Amino acid sequence: MKRIGIIAKPHKPEARPILSELLAWLEARGVEAILDEETAELAGTSGGHPKPDLPGLVDLLLVLGGDGTLLSVARLIGARDVPILGVNLGGLGFLTEVTLEELYPILDAVLQGIYEVTHRILLTATVHRQGERIAEYVALNDAVINKGVLARMIELETYIDGQYVTTFRADGLILSTPTGSTAYCLAAGGPIVYPTLRALVLTPICPHTLTLRPLVIPDAAKVEIVQGLTNENAYLTLDGQVGFTLRHRDVIRVVRSDHTITLLKAPGKDYFQILRTKLKWGER
Amino acid sequence: MKRIGIIAKPHKPEARPILSELLAWLEARGVEAILDEETAELAGTSGGHPKPDLPGLVDLLLVLGGDGTLLSVARLIGARDVPILGVNLGGLGFLTEVTLEELYPILDAVLQGIYEVTHRILLTATVHRQGERIAEYVALNDAVINKGVLARMIELETYIDGQYVTTFRADGLILSTPTGSTAYCLAAGGPIVYPTLRALVLTPICPHTLTLRPLVIPDAAKVEIVQGLTNENAYLTLDGQVGFTLRHRDVIRVVRSDHTITLLKAPGKDYFQILRTKLKWGER
Amino acid sequence: MKRIGIIAKPHKPEARPILSELLAWLEARGVEAILDEETAELAGTSGGHPKPDLPGLVDLLLVLGGDGTLLSVARLIGARDVPILGVNLGGLGFLTEVTLEELYPILDAVLQGIYEVTHRILLTATVHRQGERIAEYVALNDAVINKGVLARMIELETYIDGQYVTTFRADGLILSTPTGSTAYCLAAGGPIVYPTLRALVLTPICPHTLTLRPLVIPDAAKVEIVQGLTNENAYLTLDGQVGFTLRHRDVIRVVRSDHTITLLKAPGKDYFQILRTKLKWGER
Amino acid sequence: MKRIGIIAKPHKPEARPILSELLAWLEARGVEAILDEETAELAGTSGGHPKPDLPGLVDLLLVLGGDGTLLSVARLIGARDVPILGVNLGGLGFLTEVTLEELYPILDAVLQGIYEVTHRILLTATVHRQGERIAEYVALNDAVINKGVLARMIELETYIDGQYVTTFRADGLILSTPTGSTAYCLAAGGPIVYPTLRALVLTPICPHTLTLRPLVIPDAAKVEIVQGLTNENAYLTLDGQVGFTLRHRDVIRVVRSDHTITLLKAPGKDYFQILRTKLKWGER
Repeated sequence: MKRIGIIAKPHKPEARPILSELLAWLEARGVEAILDEETAELAGTSGGHPKPDLPGLVDLLLVLGGDGTLLSVARLIGARDVPILGVNLGGLGFLTEVTLEELYPILDAVLQGIYEVTHRILLTATVHRQGERIAEYVALNDAVINKGVLARMIELETYIDGQYVTTFRADGLILSTPTGSTAYCLAAGGPIVYPTLRALVLTPICPHTLTLRPLVIPDAAKVEIVQGLTNENAYLTLDGQVGFTLRHRDVIRVVRSDHTITLLKAPGKDYFQILRTKLKWGER
Repeated sequence: MKRIGIIAKPHKPEARPILSELLAWLEARGVEAILDEETAELAGTSGGHPKPDLPGLVDLLLVLGGDGTLLSVARLIGARDVPILGVNLGGLGFLTEVTLEELYPILDAVLQGIYEVTHRILLTATVHRQGERIAEYVALNDAVINKGVLARMIELETYIDGQYVTTFRADGLILSTPTGSTAYCLAAGGPIVYPTLRALVLTPICPHTLTLRPLVIPDAAKVEIVQGLTNENAYLTLDGQVGFTLRHRDVIRVVRSDHTITLLKAPGKDYFQILRTKLKWGER
Repeated sequence: MKRIGIIAKPHKPEARPILSELLAWLEARGVEAILDEETAELAGTSGGHPKPDLPGLVDLLLVLGGDGTLLSVARLIGARDVPILGVNLGGLGFLTEVTLEELYPILDAVLQGIYEVTHRILLTATVHRQGERIAEYVALNDAVINKGVLARMIELETYIDGQYVTTFRADGLILSTPTGSTAYCLAAGGPIVYPTLRALVLTPICPHTLTLRPLVIPDAAKVEIVQGLTNENAYLTLDGQVGFTLRHRDVIRVVRSDHTITLLKAPGKDYFQILRTKLKWGER
Repeated sequence: MKRIGIIAKPHKPEARPILSELLAWLEARGVEAILDEETAELAGTSGGHPKPDLPGLVDLLLVLGGDGTLLSVARLIGARDVPILGVNLGGLGFLTEVTLEELYPILDAVLQGIYEVTHRILLTATVHRQGERIAEYVALNDAVINKGVLARMIELETYIDGQYVTTFRADGLILSTPTGSTAYCLAAGGPIVYPTLRALVLTPICPHTLTLRPLVIPDAAKVEIVQGLTNENAYLTLDGQVGFTLRHRDVIRVVRSDHTITLLKAPGKDYFQILRTKLKWGER
């Protein structure tokens, strides 16, 4: 690990002293730090790179922020499977499980080649209008189709591997990875899916048909959804961060991406421990 | 009952023959039919009145359509408590429990003064901006505050009778009457509330805090909600039909209205029978 | 308040020093302490009274324990509406909202006649077999009818005020007061009902029909349930503490009791504050 | 397919004419029908075999009954993976998707070697007491651990692959296969899991901790549960049909079985079609 990329949460001046310390620490160990433009500006250094170039330039990406920052980085990574180490500047994240106190011991170990990783699937969502592919997105947590605020409900005609499933009449529909199952999906009543299970989750949001339930399917499935609202009052959002306005009869295709994301694990923390902490399972 | 108002669901040409038959039937019995402008046009007659004037001109309001049409009429009624008879042109409604086949026998009885009514509470929702009341609405089903599509969540600081309840971090919050408990509230996980119970229901929509649950409170309660989103990405909607854009720190006050709505009941149908039919409780 | 009854949670030696201190404190103020037999034994004093006699002998009942102890005392009170002060020896209870630290200041105020009370409804559940009333119980939280462990489900034909509601095919059915809505009812998916709302809640436990939902009805309603399991594998339990084995075609009638229970409120604590603490609404 | 085993639902005289017709049909085609003792008695023939011997004697097992009958047969099959054809004598089953009308055309095709199968995983549940394995069971739908009727809750200390998950304080815990996800698991709030996904579902029943949610894990996981109730008021049940009384500190281990079950599929019926029919997704 000779070059480590650093991406800090934008507009977060509190990260400045952390950055300075980190840059000095890396320099002292002969590791080149490569920053994106915003992070460089925050650190008061020159030579920042466009964020999308970073994955191609480094051996490891260090993300300073929260789960939201890591999600936006994950979508940038593309086919280059550079490992990510998520450092949480606030509390504990599902994706950013390393705290600031743990950072340097972990980096020490990483530079010695001692670390564990976990691979997470990504979703690819494409939008097709009148037979033409007009948009393509990647998501680590979820692709969500929902109605605009003033629409009463959305109608989503849904197919899995070409088989008709049902027409969801609901506020919307979440297509989630196991990683995303503890995010929005959970708020909508979805199950918790172990992160390495090869599965996708379809969770309707406030379905009008009370017998509709979250559906867990193999991640090899091809999901196709036809948007049935006649006015332009339906949206596709990715990881709750990127949005796209859907039209009547647009077809949204969601499949597992060809590549995965690699996350460095915090040593000594297992998945259930994070669940217990975040969801307060220990308390009564 | 000398004058009966008729309001048909707009843009529904199928209602034309039904209207003709109804007008002839009423004329034959010496009952004056008073139509709103749109319904008059549909019936091919002149002399339609502005919809908001109708409640002041008639002894009974006959609504031809579905629950949606009845909701919009209920909000018009105001302080004049003229009884409403809802006739469902499609299936069975929660509010429009009379079918076309049942209409004439019921009207016959009504003209003889034989009928039962049920009273339903209404909500009054007011919006306060920097101390000033800037909007006021009435709703029969619900007042809903929710986030715009691209916002991650809304923060709603909520007080009941001046006591702080919690800050809902969610897609939104539904304040529902018992009547509205079988509408959107049910899709969001709320309970079914018997229509004559003097209660309001607060149901969070996809709350991020998993321990938040629907809350049933006395209908004498004064609910106040402070909208915490800084951008203009929050909305108030009434009965899913009327919308208002909320700003940061707007205060939404929701109380029971001073007046109620009076619905004529279909003889021989009780509330549980309608629940069983609409929610298919009899089937397995 | 000249005579104060004290009932401590049985088999809880930790309560001994608390009792000693309390007895001395009361004696110093000229207040007679009247103990039930078990509590007297725990305190090492003679002259304990049978628990059911206590309500008739005192002006205030002090319960040392948790919500469970208070529930069992509440069912004893009967028609004598002696106020109860619940002191929680563990954490914070929904019913025992006074902690040990708060006890003496509150007692001081109470002896000066300064206190607030809240009234809570009770349920009366009777069991009828072949036309004969064979059992009668009182409950503060809930009456629960459920299947035995090895039965697949129970069938409960349910009527409200003589009107057929539905036949619940489920693990069981909870009939809860507003007080009980934060107990077992909540675990089964029921709503939170404000304690002074005049309502009952019917919550099915794991219903096979997915469209069945908790039902909130006026507390004046008379609920009748016919137990449909042919083998003796169905039970009625009251407040989770008292049980009764039901037979095929037993009819269980549940109504609001003629009398209520009076609880002394901890000054400065409102209901929502207790909810926020117990359900951790403040945390994310 | 030279020998076809037939197991009919016990105590179902209605099956007699169906059996007669079936036996004649098979004889006419030179296929030997092999019946279990109860079915033989029902058919009025001699030569019935003990049910557990049947799988070893036949090329195909025809089950006449409902899902319950098929579940009991599935647990018999053991390591011999003889295919099962489930014929539903009542409505449509999740497992018995063939109706009587469809039976003969399907059998015709089967005898010509034209059929499709689906493989379903089974669970193996073992009970360990003081280090000794004292019971072993197989289940196609689920292994359920629950409290006795009069216990307030059960405490289930749960480990997955040796990692501590949480201690479920609940009415019970369901460990379900994808096949079982549409059975009891669904009533308890679990998700629907596509039948061929290699997953297990852990669904708590009425958990006291409201943040506990159904958990979907890889089917290679080893689940271990320590029963924490001190009295003998806890039970293990398999497919809702077989029960075992648990003691304090008994350890229940649940893993995927080494063998699977093979079901013949009804041609032209896909999984989502059955879901739509059984859960009435098409209706509103």
